[in-house]
Formats: sequence, C-alpha cells, structure tokens
Amino acid sequence: MALWSGRFEQGVDSFTQEFGASLNVDKAMYKQDIAGSLAHARMLAAQGIISAEDAEQIAAGLSKIENAIDAGDFVFDINDEDVHMAIERALIEDIGDAGARLHTGRSRNDQVATDTRLYVKERIASLIAANHALRQVLLEKAEQHFDVIMPGYTHLQPAQPVLFAHHLLAYFWMLTRDYARLSQAYLAADVCPLGSAALAGTSYPLNREMTAQELGFAAVSLNSLDGVSDRDYLLDLTYACSVSMMHLSRLCEELILWSSAEFGFITLADSFSTGSSIMPQKKNPDFAELIRGKTGRVAGSLVALLMVMKALPLAYNKDMQEDKEGTFDAAKTLEDSFICMSGMIATMQVNSEAMGASVKKGFLAATDVADYLAAKGMPFRQAHEVVGNLVLTCEKRACSLEDLTLEDFQAASELFEADIMDCLTPSAVVGARTTFGGTAPEAVATQLKEAKRLLAAL
Amino acid sequence: MALWSGRFEQGVDSFTQEFGASLNVDKAMYKQDIAGSLAHARMLAAQGIISAEDAEQIAAGLSKIENAIDAGDFVFDINDEDVHMAIERALIEDIGDAGARLHTGRSRNDQVATDTRLYVKERIASLIAANHALRQVLLEKAEQHFDVIMPGYTHLQPAQPVLFAHHLLAYFWMLTRDYARLSQAYLAADVCPLGSAALAGTSYPLNREMTAQELGFAAVSLNSLDGVSDRDYLLDLTYACSVSMMHLSRLCEELILWSSAEFGFITLADSFSTGSSIMPQKKNPDFAELIRGKTGRVAGSLVALLMVMKALPLAYNKDMQEDKEGTFDAAKTLEDSFICMSGMIATMQVNSEAMGASVKKGFLAATDVADYLAAKGMPFRQAHEVVGNLVLTCEKRACSLEDLTLEDFQAASELFEADIMDCLTPSAVVGARTTFGGTAPEAVATQLKEAKRLLAAL
Amino acid sequence: MALWSGRFEQGVDSFTQEFGASLNVDKAMYKQDIAGSLAHARMLAAQGIISAEDAEQIAAGLSKIENAIDAGDFVFDINDEDVHMAIERALIEDIGDAGARLHTGRSRNDQVATDTRLYVKERIASLIAANHALRQVLLEKAEQHFDVIMPGYTHLQPAQPVLFAHHLLAYFWMLTRDYARLSQAYLAADVCPLGSAALAGTSYPLNREMTAQELGFAAVSLNSLDGVSDRDYLLDLTYACSVSMMHLSRLCEELILWSSAEFGFITLADSFSTGSSIMPQKKNPDFAELIRGKTGRVAGSLVALLMVMKALPLAYNKDMQEDKEGTFDAAKTLEDSFICMSGMIATMQVNSEAMGASVKKGFLAATDVADYLAAKGMPFRQAHEVVGNLVLTCEKRACSLEDLTLEDFQAASELFEADIMDCLTPSAVVGARTTFGGTAPEAVATQLKEAKRLLAAL
Amino acid sequence: MALWSGRFEQGVDSFTQEFGASLNVDKAMYKQDIAGSLAHARMLAAQGIISAEDAEQIAAGLSKIENAIDAGDFVFDINDEDVHMAIERALIEDIGDAGARLHTGRSRNDQVATDTRLYVKERIASLIAANHALRQVLLEKAEQHFDVIMPGYTHLQPAQPVLFAHHLLAYFWMLTRDYARLSQAYLAADVCPLGSAALAGTSYPLNREMTAQELGFAAVSLNSLDGVSDRDYLLDLTYACSVSMMHLSRLCEELILWSSAEFGFITLADSFSTGSSIMPQKKNPDFAELIRGKTGRVAGSLVALLMVMKALPLAYNKDMQEDKEGTFDAAKTLEDSFICMSGMIATMQVNSEAMGASVKKGFLAATDVADYLAAKGMPFRQAHEVVGNLVLTCEKRACSLEDLTLEDFQAASELFEADIMDCLTPSAVVGARTTFGGTAPEAVATQLKEAKRLLAAL
Repeated sequence: MALWSGRFEQGVDSFTQEFGASLNVDKAMYKQDIAGSLAHARMLAAQGIISAEDAEQIAAGLSKIENAIDAGDFVFDINDEDVHMAIERALIEDIGDAGARLHTGRSRNDQVATDTRLYVKERIASLIAANHALRQVLLEKAEQHFDVIMPGYTHLQPAQPVLFAHHLLAYFWMLTRDYARLSQAYLAADVCPLGSAALAGTSYPLNREMTAQELGFAAVSLNSLDGVSDRDYLLDLTYACSVSMMHLSRLCEELILWSSAEFGFITLADSFSTGSSIMPQKKNPDFAELIRGKTGRVAGSLVALLMVMKALPLAYNKDMQEDKEGTFDAAKTLEDSFICMSGMIATMQVNSEAMGASVKKGFLAATDVADYLAAKGMPFRQAHEVVGNLVLTCEKRACSLEDLTLEDFQAASELFEADIMDCLTPSAVVGARTTFGGTAPEAVATQLKEAKRLLAAL
Repeated sequence: MALWSGRFEQGVDSFTQEFGASLNVDKAMYKQDIAGSLAHARMLAAQGIISAEDAEQIAAGLSKIENAIDAGDFVFDINDEDVHMAIERALIEDIGDAGARLHTGRSRNDQVATDTRLYVKERIASLIAANHALRQVLLEKAEQHFDVIMPGYTHLQPAQPVLFAHHLLAYFWMLTRDYARLSQAYLAADVCPLGSAALAGTSYPLNREMTAQELGFAAVSLNSLDGVSDRDYLLDLTYACSVSMMHLSRLCEELILWSSAEFGFITLADSFSTGSSIMPQKKNPDFAELIRGKTGRVAGSLVALLMVMKALPLAYNKDMQEDKEGTFDAAKTLEDSFICMSGMIATMQVNSEAMGASVKKGFLAATDVADYLAAKGMPFRQAHEVVGNLVLTCEKRACSLEDLTLEDFQAASELFEADIMDCLTPSAVVGARTTFGGTAPEAVATQLKEAKRLLAAL
Repeated sequence: MALWSGRFEQGVDSFTQEFGASLNVDKAMYKQDIAGSLAHARMLAAQGIISAEDAEQIAAGLSKIENAIDAGDFVFDINDEDVHMAIERALIEDIGDAGARLHTGRSRNDQVATDTRLYVKERIASLIAANHALRQVLLEKAEQHFDVIMPGYTHLQPAQPVLFAHHLLAYFWMLTRDYARLSQAYLAADVCPLGSAALAGTSYPLNREMTAQELGFAAVSLNSLDGVSDRDYLLDLTYACSVSMMHLSRLCEELILWSSAEFGFITLADSFSTGSSIMPQKKNPDFAELIRGKTGRVAGSLVALLMVMKALPLAYNKDMQEDKEGTFDAAKTLEDSFICMSGMIATMQVNSEAMGASVKKGFLAATDVADYLAAKGMPFRQAHEVVGNLVLTCEKRACSLEDLTLEDFQAASELFEADIMDCLTPSAVVGARTTFGGTAPEAVATQLKEAKRLLAAL
Repeated sequence: MALWSGRFEQGVDSFTQEFGASLNVDKAMYKQDIAGSLAHARMLAAQGIISAEDAEQIAAGLSKIENAIDAGDFVFDINDEDVHMAIERALIEDIGDAGARLHTGRSRNDQVATDTRLYVKERIASLIAANHALRQVLLEKAEQHFDVIMPGYTHLQPAQPVLFAHHLLAYFWMLTRDYARLSQAYLAADVCPLGSAALAGTSYPLNREMTAQELGFAAVSLNSLDGVSDRDYLLDLTYACSVSMMHLSRLCEELILWSSAEFGFITLADSFSTGSSIMPQKKNPDFAELIRGKTGRVAGSLVALLMVMKALPLAYNKDMQEDKEGTFDAAKTLEDSFICMSGMIATMQVNSEAMGASVKKGFLAATDVADYLAAKGMPFRQAHEVVGNLVLTCEKRACSLEDLTLEDFQAASELFEADIMDCLTPSAVVGARTTFGGTAPEAVATQLKEAKRLLAAL
C-alpha cells in the first residue's frame, strides 16, 4: 500500500500503478533526492523539530541507500511510484520511526521541485562545459585555416568570398548566445522551493535559508504556491536547448553540403562517417544528419511542456509529472550533440583548393565592381544595373568576370579604368571588407581576439 | 567493425557509436525484422536467386535467434547500431555464407521501412481494440444512467439541462472519429516497400508481390525512391494519436471538474485516485490529470516528426532514424490512456442528486421561456431581451426562474399565460429538445441505438 | 449594445470589443453565413415555424446584404463582434420583425460551425484542384525528360543513378497521398451541425435533413453537444496542409540544391527567381525558399489549434474562436504554394549534361559490381567488402570505377570477368533495375502509366 | 521592374509577386526603416562617402515620405515587395541620384535586420509597460482583499486554506519572471547589424559605431555573416511571449472556474463578460477564455519560427522572410492580453463569503491535525494515516473535521488533547504557516512589501 493510503479502501491495480509511476524517469535524480533529504533533516534537527539522534540515523540511513543505488544493489519497485517514495520507504524499513519523521514539514510537492532544480543545475553546468569545448574547437579550426577563402552564400547562391575562419566564427557567436541562454536557465533554476510544503508553507519553524544554502541555491522562493507550481526553469532550459539545436542544425546542413560530391569543401573523418549496407562506395555524414534530425525532438519537448502547463490551475497538478522526461532528454541530446560536433569539426579535413575553385565560379566580385562605379560617382542603383548586365554577358559567353577585358568593362561604362582588374581577385574582394565585423583578414583577426578573450572569461 | 566498413580505415569511437545507434528503440521490432527476412529469403529461393538449402538454413537460423530474443538470451551489442544489423550478424556467425546471402537484393533502407510498417500495423490494431473497448464503456455508462439530468455548459456557465447519457455520447462520437483516423493510418502503413532496395530498386529479379502477400500487406509501393523516404504513415499515426489525446484531455478536464468538491457530480473509484504525502484528506484524480498532461507529449512527438522531415532531400537521410521513438511512444501513450480511461469511467460513481441540485441553479430554462414568447409571435430577439431582464430580476432577488410567480412573468410580457410554469422544470426542458441529435430522451435513445449498431459493426 | 445584452447593465469598452471580435477573420465567410441563413429560413417556413412571408422577406433582405458586401458597400462595424451578428443586425434594421425571427431555433454556436464547414469545404475543393494541377505538371515534366539520368542520393551522397522522371514521380505519389488526406478532411467537414442550437438541440420542430441537403452536406451530425464543440475537421485540414507543405519543402530543398552553382542540375525561370539589392550577379531561388519557409507557419497553426482545443470542457468555449485564422491561413498558404510550385516546375530548365557529369563522379555502379560478384556465388556481405576496397583504391588514384582495368578488378577477386566492364555505365546501372517500382525505363514507364490513370480518375 | 532586375530578362508575374511580397507585414516598420536610412545617410556623409548635400536631400525626402505614410497618403505597391524597396523607390522618384546613393555600403539583408531589431525593441518596451501595469493591478487587488481566505487546491481538490492575496501574488512572481524574459529578449535585440551589408561587410569605410549610437543600440554586431542571419532575438521574444501567455492561461482557467456557478468565488464585471445569442441568462467569461485560447496561437508562432530556421545554411535565405508575422502577432497578442487581464482583475468582484463557505468543506485542516500529532512525537507517516482514517469517518458521517468531538479525536489517537479544537479553523490553519513564503498574514505582508519594492524598481 502507498504511503498516502490512509483514507483509501481499495488499491490501485498494477496497470494503473505502472501508468501513474514516474520512477523510470525520476530515479535519475536519486542523488539530488538524498542530498535534499539530508539538508532537510539537518535543518529539522538544528531547529529542534526532530532530535539530533533522529537526524544522525536519517543521515546514516540515507548514506546506506545512496551507496546501494550507486552499486546497483537497490531494488526499485514500481509500486513506489517515484524515487522519493522509494527512498523514503527504504529508509523507514531500515531505521523505523526516525525515518518516518523525515517528511516533517515537507511535502512531495516541494521535495520534487527541489530535487528537479538540483538535478537541472548539474545538467546545465555540464551543458555549458560542452558548449565551451565546442566553441574552443571552432576557434582553433578558424585559426588553423585562417587563410582559406570560401564562397559566401545567400540563398545558397554564391554571393561574395569570405574567410572560412569568418564563417566558422559566425557559429562561435551563435553558441555564445546559447551559452547566455543556458546561463539564464541556470539562474532560473537556482531558487530553492523547499519549505513551500504542499502549497501553503508549513506551521513548523523551518529555516529555509539554511537548507537553501546547504544545497547551494542562490536564493529562496518567495511564494509557496508559486514554489510548487513553477516550471519556468524547465521551459527555459528546453528552450535554450531548442535554439542551440537549431544552430547546430544549420552547421550540420552546411557540413552535409560541404561534404557532398558536388561541393567537396571538406572531408569528414572516417570516425564521424558511416557506410551503407548495400552500396560499398558510400561514406555518409550520418552524425551531422542525426544532430540535424534531433533538432525536431528537442523542439517537440518544448511544445510538449508548454502544452502540459497551459491552463493548469494552481498549485500542483499531476499533469506536471510530465515535466521531466522531455526536459532531461533535451539536455542530454544537446550535450551529446555538442560533444559529437566538437569531434566532427576537430577531425574534419578542409579542402581549400575545392573552396578556391568554387570561389572563381560565382561572379563573386560583382558587388565590388558596382562599388567601384559608385565610388566614381555613379549612383549605386545604376551601378548595380550596369554590373547586372555585365554578368548576363559573362553567362552568355560562359566566362567569369575575370575573363572580361578592359574593353568589355569600358563598353559597359566609361568610368571603368585599368585598376578595375585589381578588384576582381578573391583575396582583393575579401581584403577590402575591413569594416568592423567584416571578412577582411584584419577584421577577422580582431574578431578572433575578442572571441578568445570571451572564451577565457566564460 | 561494422558490416559496411569495407571502405573505411578508421572506426567510430564508442561515444559516437552509442550516439548514432538506434538499437534501444528499434529492438522492439525484432519479430517484424525476422518475419521480413524470412519472407525475403523464401522469395529469393522461389525466384532462384539463392538456393533452397540457403533459404532453409536462414529460416532455421532466424527461428533460433527469435527464440533467443523471446527468452531474453540474445545479447544485443550497441556496436551493431540497430536491430537489423544485430540479427544479421548473429545469423552469419551461426550459419555462415548462407546468412551472408540474406541481404541479396535488399538494403537496410527498404528493410527498415518494411519492419516499421509491420510494427506500426500491429500497434494500430491494438489501439483500435482499446478505442473500441472505451467506446463500449461509454455506451454502457450512458445506458446505466439514462435518466440522469445534468447541467449542460457553454463557457463553463450553466446553459441548458442535458441528459448525462447525451453528454457521454458526445465523447463516443469523438472516439468514433478517432477510430476512423487510426484506420486511415493503418491503410497508409499497409503498403510494402520491400524491393525498393537502397533507393532505386534492384537488378535481382525479385517478386515483390510475393513478399508483400506473405507479410500481409495490402499493396506494393509504386516508386522505390518514395518507398524508402516516405514517413507519412508515421505522421498519420502520430496525428491520429494527438487528436485522440486531445479528446481524452477534454474528458479528463470534465472528470476533474466533476470530482471537485464544488461540482461533486462524480466520485472516482479509489483504484483510480491517489492520496497526498502530506495532506491526509486528499483524494486526487491523478489519472485524469496524467492523461490530460500526456496530451502535450504526444503533440510534441508530432511536431518533432514534422520538423525532422522538413526539407530533407530524397531519398533516405539519417535524420529519419528519429522517426520511431516519438511515434512508438505516442501509440503506447494513447493505448495506455484508452485503457486507463475505460477503467476510470467504468468504475466511477455518478452523483445524480448533485447534478440535479446544480441544474436548479443556473436559470437553465431561460431559453425555453424565450422560445415560449417566440412561439406566441414575439420575434426571438425581443423575447431574448425580455427574458434577459427576468433573469436580472431573479439575480437581484437571489431566486430562480421557477420561484417567479405568473404575475412576475406577465409583468414582463402580456404573452405569458399559466402554462409557462410547465416549461420550467429540467425534465420539461430536456424533454422538449426532440430534434435529431437533441437531448430529449427519445432522441438520445435513437442516438444510443445508432451508436450500438456502429460499435457492433466496427 | 450587443444583441445579447438584455441581462447586462454595462457595456464592453472599445478595446475589449476589438480584442474580442472575430470580424476581421470571419467576414471571409459572409457568403456561407447568408447561404446558411437562407436555408434555415426556408426550412422554418416549410415547417410552419415562421410564415412564408417572413421567409420571403428574409430571403430578399439577405440577398440585398450579399450584394452590398460583394460590391464593397457594406459597412462592417467592429461592435458587431462577428460576421453573423453584423449580417443579422443589418437584416433586422432593414426588414424589422421578420429579420428578428430568423434566429428562431438556432444559436450562434451551430451557425458558426455550419458556416465554417461550408467555407472549409470550398477551400478544400480548391486545394484539391491545385494539388491535381501540380501533379499534372510533374507528370508532364517527367515525360518530357524521360531519358535524363541523374545521380540518386542518400545522405546527400551519390548512391545510384536514377531517371530524373523517377525522381519527379516520387513527388507525384507524395502529392497523391496529400490528395487523399485532403479528401478525408473534406469528408470530416461534410456533416451538418445546424439544428444543434446552443448545445442541446431545440424544442422547435426543425427539419435538419432539409437544411443539410439544401446546403449540400452529405450527413447530419448525431449529437448536439458534439455538433457545436467538434473542431476535428479543422485539425484534419491543417494537418493535411502541414504534411503537404512538408512534402513541398523537400522538393524545394532539392530545387535549391539543384540550382546551386555546385550542382547546376536545373535553371529556374527568371519569372521564378529574384535578384539582390546589392549583388548584381545574384539570381536567387526565392520562391522555393519561401515555400520551404512557409512549412513552419502551417505546422505552427496545427500546434496552435491542438493547444487551443486541449482540455476544453464541453460544449462551446470562446477559446474556439481561435480556430479559424490559422486554418484558413494554412489552406491559403498551401494553395498558393501548389500554384507557385506548378509554375516553377513547368518553367524550369533541366540541365541533363550537368546531371550526366555528376553521375560519373560518385562510384554509382558500386552496388552493381557487388551484385555481379554475388551473382557469381560470393555472399553479398563479402562482395560488399571487396567493392569497398576497390572504391578506396579509386579514391587514392583519384579515378572512377570505369577507369579501372580488368586486371584491377581481377586483382580484387578472381570472379571478375570481361563482362564486368559492361555493368559500369549509368544507363546499364539504371536499366538493370527492372523490379516493380524500380528506376529502369520500362519500370518507370509502367509507373507513369499508372500515375496517368490515377490522375484521370481523381 | 524591380530595383535588382539588371540581370533578368523576364519579370515575375503578379501572382508570384504577391506570394513573394512581405509588404503587408513589414510596412508596420516604416518608421524604423526611415530612421535607419537617415542614420545611414548621415554616417555616409560624415565619412565622406556621399556628399553633405546628398545627405540633406535624402533626409528631406525621407521626412516627406514619413509624413505621407503617417497621413495615409502614401501608396504602397505590391510590386515593391517590401517596405524597404517601397520607400527607396519613392525616394529615388522624388530626389533622383541622391536617393540612388542611399543604398551605398548597405544591403537589404542588414537593413531588414536593423529595422526589425528597432521595431522589436519598441514592441518589447511596450510589452514591459503592460506587464508592469498588470503586476500593479495584482498587487492592488491583493492589498484590497488582504483578509480574504480561500481554499488552496492541488489537483483541483481542496488542500489547505490560503490567503486570496497569497494566491494572486503567485501570479505576480510569474509575471516578474516574464518581465525578466522580456528584458533578455530586449538585450538580444539591442545589437546593431547595420554595416554587415549582404553577408561579408563592405569595402566602404563605414563608421558602424556612429549609426548604432544614433539609432540607440547598445552594441554593434561582431560578425557580418551572423549579423544578417541571426534571428535569435525574435525567437527569444516569441518564447518570452509563449511562457507569459501560458501563465495568463493558468490565471484565466482560474477566473473561469471561480466565476462558474459551482465555485462562485468572483463575479466578473459586465464590461468583461458577454452574453449568448440564444440563452438570455448567460454571462460568459469570454475574455478569460479568449486569452486562454490565444496561448495556442503564440506557441504556434514559436514552433513556426524554430521550424523556419532549422537547417538553414548561412547566410540569408528567403525562408527568413517568414520571421516577422508570427513574432509581431505574438507581441501584440500578449500586450493586448496584459491590458485585457488588467481590466478584468481590476474590475472583478471578490465573493469572500463563497470562498469562506468552500473553505469549510474540504477537510482543509487535515494536515494540521497530522502536524499536531507529529509535534507530540508521532512519526509524521503514522500521523498521516491516523488523520486519513478520521477523514474517512467524516465522509461516512457527512460532516467536517470541526464537527468531530474531542472523543472522536481521542478514539483515533490518545495524543489528542482539548487544544486540537483550536487548530481547526481556517484562520488558525492559515495563521500557522509563517515560514518565509508561506500563507500566514505576516508572511504575506512581507511578500507584498518585497513585491512593491521590486515593482518600484523595475
């Protein structure tokens, strides 16, 4: 019979028992549950609510249970519903009345909320480390290949040449914003609801500051109803994971494109590729695809949690038991994806010649030719049109802008002089973009320095 | 080393191996995988592509493997990536060359698609049975309490009295539509892609009709590229589950409201209620809340799969490995919810007096009073206003419409005569609504008959 | 003051009036509202509930209003909340008491549901026509370029050569399934709820069959509570749109890839491309990108509606006013996307040489070389490995399989004979895949015939 | 012909023109577009890139256009695609060459990103003000009704009595977190991408700090590729709106429950209620339902944007045109909902007697009776069981705990003494919960003070 069964005359059958249980998900939090109980027991003793002997017995009993779970010797029983009940029952079986006093001034509602926050804080810390490592890898790769020029695209059409390093750094900044969102989620989780009891606080003279401090929380929650019914910190985490997965999916898309036969810009390491059961020649960018695919899963968890919480009256409702599985999965998925992406980037081979060959194809100097005319006084809109016509000429002749003669240019506009030929090389085009944040080597060097400074700091 | 590793010089490390594996999810399909392989081997032999002896050895080997998995004696190794590779490797280890010939004219792409369709067909059949059982329970409950009148609500405000049976039958029809959607998903799954090979078909003279028939498929897919890259049938299933969970969430919301202290319309069985760890008086409608909450999870899986499939080029991409976990979970969640809801409805106690008391409170005869005036020739819009004012009078006097005297009515309009007093009782109001689909007992009896007829048929 | 304001002592202020109004969305349904009212009035007269003269006046009045709206002369007032109230008020202002009798035996709840179903049926019919037109275009393009061979991909890596026609037909079948889903949504909408009144039916002797038939509905709803609270048909439509947009997004992704400088497989018409405000050389596949992007919007509407409906108690709740905007937008977005895609496909230029050049690059005959060995008795798994090693050799030599000599092949396996050289051309590889649904010309011809037959039928 | 049409030989037809245009959405940003152009022109002149005369003419021309749009005299033409092109074209038509020089060193990509950020910053500021106003209203309502006791619920079952003020303050803290999320979104938007040009920066010697400062941005973006392809700030805003709508949906659910006939805890003002077209007695909490419903719409927009951005390669893609409509709608929906909710709360009547009557029904003192026993040394788990049995006794006798005699208590446990009778009143139960964040009047007073302090600060 369940610990709350006093008023019940009839048990719950085994199907509903299993349907209603959260044990398979929340047993991941056993260490947090035990830490929370330890802090609560110490505080109860310090406040004279239970005796010091009881607190000691509880501490010893919990420690035994933790060791048993660590060692895989603890038998979880689905009839215990959740990890909290499983541990409390084992404690009472072991130490008797002292164990039965642990739940004084506490409810499962504030206990669950506290455990989940502790657990989530650890997961976020781990996510931030993995995020940091990936940013480090991006930085290193950017430095290693600082001189490589690739085509920059908009609409997947060649637009202007950019430094490969500049392109990688774009992801560095996305991941830096992800770091910030993860940090915000950490702060949201870093508030201790213990002492909110079921929903209204309790009549025991608890010292909430003491438990919060012992458990490493930065603050104590201000309203007991909100304390047990707030799941914003889980939403914040799942959201942060969703955006970060979206960022990774963009990088994955590019890795897949770049390792296609048609682009050939990179070669992924064998250790981050797989083959086909039927086609012997295949070398597939499976891991990039898999991360891209997992973006859906994490966004799905965000939707799920928003839908769970929608229109729930205060305070706790059982619907909220559905809060953990998706969030924990989102955090694990993102962390694994960070790790996998770090390995993939670190080990990939950059084919600078293929990039260079592609840069020559797409009329990538066209904007600079228009700017050349604009600098000579032609309004930009007219210059744009003149160059558009030059491109059309090239397409008809199947040649590149560099293949045009000075006469061709001058036929299009008298403003062209011999120096136009110097504007057309990829390195000239890249080198000209010296504005802050631009792709010229000096601007990218500045950017790299700022990225390094930031990474050292956080 | 993986079975596809011929062209690779370097293995995949254990982290990425685990990250990339789908074994934990797809091992649920081992029976389907074995059935698919058996049918494929038999067809290969019938077509003379492999020898009859090879086919017999394969059949014997697969049967041994199936028994081992059934008995829990088969060791799945994460290095096998998925259930298909795990079984094929074991087969080759056991029977050698004959096993290595099984994959002739087949690719993992069409194999996975075939297995998944077989698995999903079974799950849907099971879902349809659980849906049928729940509809049966609703029908029985409606018949049992045929005479009970409850307040019908719009905007959660009392609107007009309705038969409780009529209210339950509204869910019967929702669930009947869910049955139709599940059937559609079944038909979508019932097409055999085996023989599509990797993406382009194969040069072996396969007999696709033969394997399809042996596996119980209704049709053979028409295009090999589509055969390996179509996941519509999984979307259809997840969508059908999402809508059905939404329907259940509406019923759950009502069960929760009805079992609140304020409504008190029903009492859930102890076996479908739980208590509180701290509040001894609590009896919570946990299971109704849990089903309501799980609505989010299923909709989240639908979003996930739509997002996975978005913008994937043909044909197979590894992203699609993410297609199974959410769909299988959606099917299990809905089936469990059907079962749990059936138990909850079958065992709940209906408090007809509480419903009756509530019917008296909400001016539920107001529409009928307006209709009375309209029947005497007053335009309905004016009648509506006259009765609106009568209600305001009642509210000020804190009385009900039945408490007004004939004089009160006649002061509002001279069209009122003594027979107005007969229109005001709940049973008069309910009994008057004899239109097809209305709440009058005779109309509901007709509806019940139609529901029974339908349930007997499908 | 609102038409329902009898019991109210205080009006709603203008901000809330606007916030609460649905007029801007539902005025799209004015023709359906008028048709529904006409049918209702005729039935009321036929049943003797209102006089024939009233019915005639109502018909004349509604016709005047319809003409005024058609002509843009009707002034919608936000104070009317919705199109139903706007038209009814205008009718009463015009014809007085007869107009005030129109609402007899009807509620806004069943009126809105009826109008929306009528509107949605029209939108779906229109969607089906646009779907049909796009399938026609795909068929024609496939026929036009029947001989073109392109690389087939899995994981965006070259896999095996396929007919371009085969690839286009894969989308034909996806769109055929979309047609089926749209038809299901149509059937779901094709049920008339008129006569359900507010929630419980009505005491007037309505003839529901008569109005349903006059309005062209296939059936009459069976339960009045369900009649006013069912929104499944809108979910079914939004879901059908979501899946179809997902299919289009896959085709868009491919069009974007194919028109990239690196692939160069197609050239989109100028009329389906746009330029850049700054880069004169750009020709962007904007419309393919836009359709791909709009996939998100439609899936978002599906999520929105599922979330709106979650946990709503019966019967009507104002939340459900949010049912139309997203659904109508989804239908319009998909229809526009079908039209735009039809134009894009019909006008695009297919660069068969570029496709041909690409086919040569990716070792696309590797599977056939393995099949060659398997046909000579080598177990497929070993053959796979032998060919994997041959590919590795080619990669090191930077050559293709066709560049290897017979000696190279025989060094890898003694089973190779001179005829291996005939297996290596793209047309040999394509031509060998004659299984039903495969990419061999004869199999694709069969497929085309089936597609035409189907298109002629539906 | 479009401004970018130089290289094109064929126009876009009117259907695709309309399909591709964003004018209807982005014309909302005309003031931001003009402000951005003004700042850009001034900077170009300051840097000597254009002449001072050109800059003056541009300023005068833009000012004329702004006035025309303000006055409704500007004709937007769908052929202009978007607001940026519409204004630039008008400028060129008006002032000629000087206008054509405005686009020097700028692309639509950085222009759109800048305008959107400016617009979004304004919307967030406005949202924060509306959030602040609603928090103010909650505070005032809490103070006004400081003494009112209501039943606190978990699982919608009566749990423990709480101060109504405590309950309202729970929402104050949710909204305070929403304020924080909105502020984060503001910071995310407060970075100026102008100068990123198309994707790579520009060769003009722009002064990006100058434009950023003039436009009131806190920072300048660090990477040009990221500058034009980052939409995180829109996701952050839509997410913040989604969570806040979810919070409001919870409050709405409670307002709807509380204003039901069965609860009767509050009466919404007539100005925040509506009637029925058919049922004269109805007074519906339409606005609470509508806000609850709109929660779906906002979450749908979040899903849409995540799906749009998924797997987009760098830098700009046309898919991203879909970024604004949903986000702008989310911001407007939340702001309107804040305003509407403020009015609803400010004007609602609190029925303290109805709350008080309900408090008596639900055995709300049960926890305190168990705590009483625990304080006397009985382990809490046993005490819980003893009180569970007492509740069962009451249910069978249909009485409340207060109706039990001391003998009844002592029959259950000898630890009960006469003072147990003092623990049973609602005010005793509430008054005992003095822990920080608890519901005792002194704890709530502390909380109110903190809330006021915070509200004064931000």
